[in-house]
Amino acid sequence: MQQFGIIGLSVMGKNLALNVRNNGFSVSGFSIDKKEVDALANYKDEKLKPTYSWEEFVSSLEKPRKILIQIAAGKPVDETLAKLLPLLDKGDILLDGGNSNFHDTNRRFHELQEHGIHFIGMGVSGGEEGALKGPALMPGGDEEAYKEVAPILEAIAAKNSDGHPCVSFIGPEGSGHYVKMVHNGIEYGIMQEFSEVYDVLRKVAGKSNAEMSQIFADWNQGLVQAYLSEITAEVLKQKDDLTPDYVIDHILNVASYKGTGNWMLEDGVHLGAPISVVAEAVLARFMSKATTREGKEVQWNGEVPINLIDNLAKALQLSQAVAYAQGFQQLKMAADAYHWELHYPAIAQSWEAGCIIRSSMLKDIEKAFANGKQLNNMFQDAYFNKLMEQNLPALRQVIELATRAGIPTPTLSAALNYLESIFNPSLPANLIQGQRDYFGAHTYYRNDRAGVYHTQWFEEK
Amino acid sequence: MQQFGIIGLSVMGKNLALNVRNNGFSVSGFSIDKKEVDALANYKDEKLKPTYSWEEFVSSLEKPRKILIQIAAGKPVDETLAKLLPLLDKGDILLDGGNSNFHDTNRRFHELQEHGIHFIGMGVSGGEEGALKGPALMPGGDEEAYKEVAPILEAIAAKNSDGHPCVSFIGPEGSGHYVKMVHNGIEYGIMQEFSEVYDVLRKVAGKSNAEMSQIFADWNQGLVQAYLSEITAEVLKQKDDLTPDYVIDHILNVASYKGTGNWMLEDGVHLGAPISVVAEAVLARFMSKATTREGKEVQWNGEVPINLIDNLAKALQLSQAVAYAQGFQQLKMAADAYHWELHYPAIAQSWEAGCIIRSSMLKDIEKAFANGKQLNNMFQDAYFNKLMEQNLPALRQVIELATRAGIPTPTLSAALNYLESIFNPSLPANLIQGQRDYFGAHTYYRNDRAGVYHTQWFEEK
Repeated sequence: MQQFGIIGLSVMGKNLALNVRNNGFSVSGFSIDKKEVDALANYKDEKLKPTYSWEEFVSSLEKPRKILIQIAAGKPVDETLAKLLPLLDKGDILLDGGNSNFHDTNRRFHELQEHGIHFIGMGVSGGEEGALKGPALMPGGDEEAYKEVAPILEAIAAKNSDGHPCVSFIGPEGSGHYVKMVHNGIEYGIMQEFSEVYDVLRKVAGKSNAEMSQIFADWNQGLVQAYLSEITAEVLKQKDDLTPDYVIDHILNVASYKGTGNWMLEDGVHLGAPISVVAEAVLARFMSKATTREGKEVQWNGEVPINLIDNLAKALQLSQAVAYAQGFQQLKMAADAYHWELHYPAIAQSWEAGCIIRSSMLKDIEKAFANGKQLNNMFQDAYFNKLMEQNLPALRQVIELATRAGIPTPTLSAALNYLESIFNPSLPANLIQGQRDYFGAHTYYRNDRAGVYHTQWFEEK
Repeated sequence: MQQFGIIGLSVMGKNLALNVRNNGFSVSGFSIDKKEVDALANYKDEKLKPTYSWEEFVSSLEKPRKILIQIAAGKPVDETLAKLLPLLDKGDILLDGGNSNFHDTNRRFHELQEHGIHFIGMGVSGGEEGALKGPALMPGGDEEAYKEVAPILEAIAAKNSDGHPCVSFIGPEGSGHYVKMVHNGIEYGIMQEFSEVYDVLRKVAGKSNAEMSQIFADWNQGLVQAYLSEITAEVLKQKDDLTPDYVIDHILNVASYKGTGNWMLEDGVHLGAPISVVAEAVLARFMSKATTREGKEVQWNGEVPINLIDNLAKALQLSQAVAYAQGFQQLKMAADAYHWELHYPAIAQSWEAGCIIRSSMLKDIEKAFANGKQLNNMFQDAYFNKLMEQNLPALRQVIELATRAGIPTPTLSAALNYLESIFNPSLPANLIQGQRDYFGAHTYYRNDRAGVYHTQWFEEK
């Protein structure tokens, strides 16, 4: 009998199967695409068992069965669950490793619970390579069931700098997929921040692709030690196969998306989370499609501040912190709204290796939220408060310069405006409340006494 | 027999009934709250008929019946429709004047169509006073049915500067409520822009409430001729009833919302609309609640540019144009996605009087979209292109100054970044596409040849 089963054997499912096998566990694999099963059979490894029917697959597994579903999110998952359900026994454990919407996972968790089946919605980050060598895993659902699969998940997960596996139980219902959604929203935010810094580097500082590649590589050893720094350096230095140029100069500047960042924004709006960097990153992808491209190129003839490169590093470091901070702020609001107990240091830790947004800063975030510390925003933590104080002048300088040069910086601007707002004692929303009471008698609260007030702004006519 | 019926007689419904009566039409009124019907009875006017049951109400109306439902959006509307349906005849016309979600209106339109009942979802803007003296109306649904009610709607609607009523048929299904939703999103955007300008005026220019009131009053005769300028001047000069101070200084700076602006953002995300000013305005309301207020007040000791007030007017004028532009951009994308034929000049015209976002600029917007002109964005129109060219330096100066002073300007920044992007030939999204292809093999398009490409970024391991 096999210890683990995987349904769906395209590149992610196959690589996860190999990862499980490489860690000493036996796996059965099944797919409705027979060619995928044949590919598994080619390994001729008794710990990698190909199966060709739902029945063969299910009956090959030891009980309680542990089955990872690694297929396209949406309807296929429900179809797969319908096929499996009659074949399972109470106590069996299903894991959904796709990018499912957390609303679907909430529903499936409760539907399967009624049948005595444990359902774990699990975010998986790290792409194909991560799947094979160590992904970041974000499992949510039933904690007792998690304990049953923990030995396998901890074995296959990426390990952080302390050697700790990047997986731990996230929380109930769809909270695992929720955390993955927030991961992806942060990813949108930080990627857009990188692209804006790149835009300033090339158009204001006049740096070549080779120079920029070196700058990002240096930052990866310095202020912005992050996977995205590493791969940005790699992307910028890549020569094109089809022209004598760098490939970056021939990639069309229209950003695609699969939508999990959009989902984070949608739920952020539902919760009232001020996640402006994520919002601007999502909208910047829309804008990259909507722009007419009819305008003139920026020609910066002004001064280039001597400390610009250093300040760009500091601006990016701080803006990256804002993207994370907004993610954790939304997680806290989701935990309150959905009655989930979320363990924030564990979430930070699960992102420390294997995933796209991994960076050395996540260790500091883990510490900021250590011991159940409740923060309205991450910059209440002493480390990040100091980072803000140190880097804010640099971020302001970058925004001023980009503004003068005519370079759009939607996420860097949003990061700055967030920081100028989170501790602000006198945001001007009193004017909005005054206007609302004037035109709609919507009433307002006062800052000097309790109660609800309405002003008689004009004579009743 | 009465010519028009209104269900729901709280202040909006009652004032609309009076408005209909004042324009010479006879009205029946009904409410499940008997006190509201009694209040109507107190007028003792045969053209204002109180009715005390669903049956009495329906049978008091001439056929085809024309019934306006003016109650809280959501479930109450469905309950009201269920009560009415058995009492109606084919060809009767129902109008929903509440802030219903357009998805609900789409559904109700088709459900009622199956019963031969015409359903018109109608946005109503202008508050209590507008309801009585002339609201802006945005009716969508069935055009033939609209023609039946047009004489009454045109009589009660606000009139623009040409004397034209601010109502015309918007389009099919829930498009009327969609346009009202977009109106409200633009309203959120422009109100937040005003509040940021107010923040710069008080904290950087050091203006008193009385001075600011005069400044907005002047702008209302100058560059920003808008209802919101008018009422901002009024709000700022209002003395408090409870203290010797101005009331604005005692209104708590936490912005409330009922959510129609949020709905616009949600559907904008669904459609891929780059509506950053609306997004930042929605999030700024969230932030006004989320801020810890632990920080220091801004103390600006730097220079105050001599032309700051003029530049703030220009910045606000241009930012207001961006808010409108984003609204029309989303309307165009909605029309494409939902297969609605929308008549943009008529929409601009319907906002020219009676509603919260009315301003002299809407006449220019009406012209920009005249004769079925298709614009990717409003700044492709010559008038607005020139406005952008003229005012962009002022907007940049305001952002630079606010950045130096530490004043958050989320919507003004978003407006600037939008303008720097819409004609931009080289937004840096190529880097995002490069990163995505690197870590996820997501592929990319090229700018020099057709087809889908993937780069072998690293050696297969």
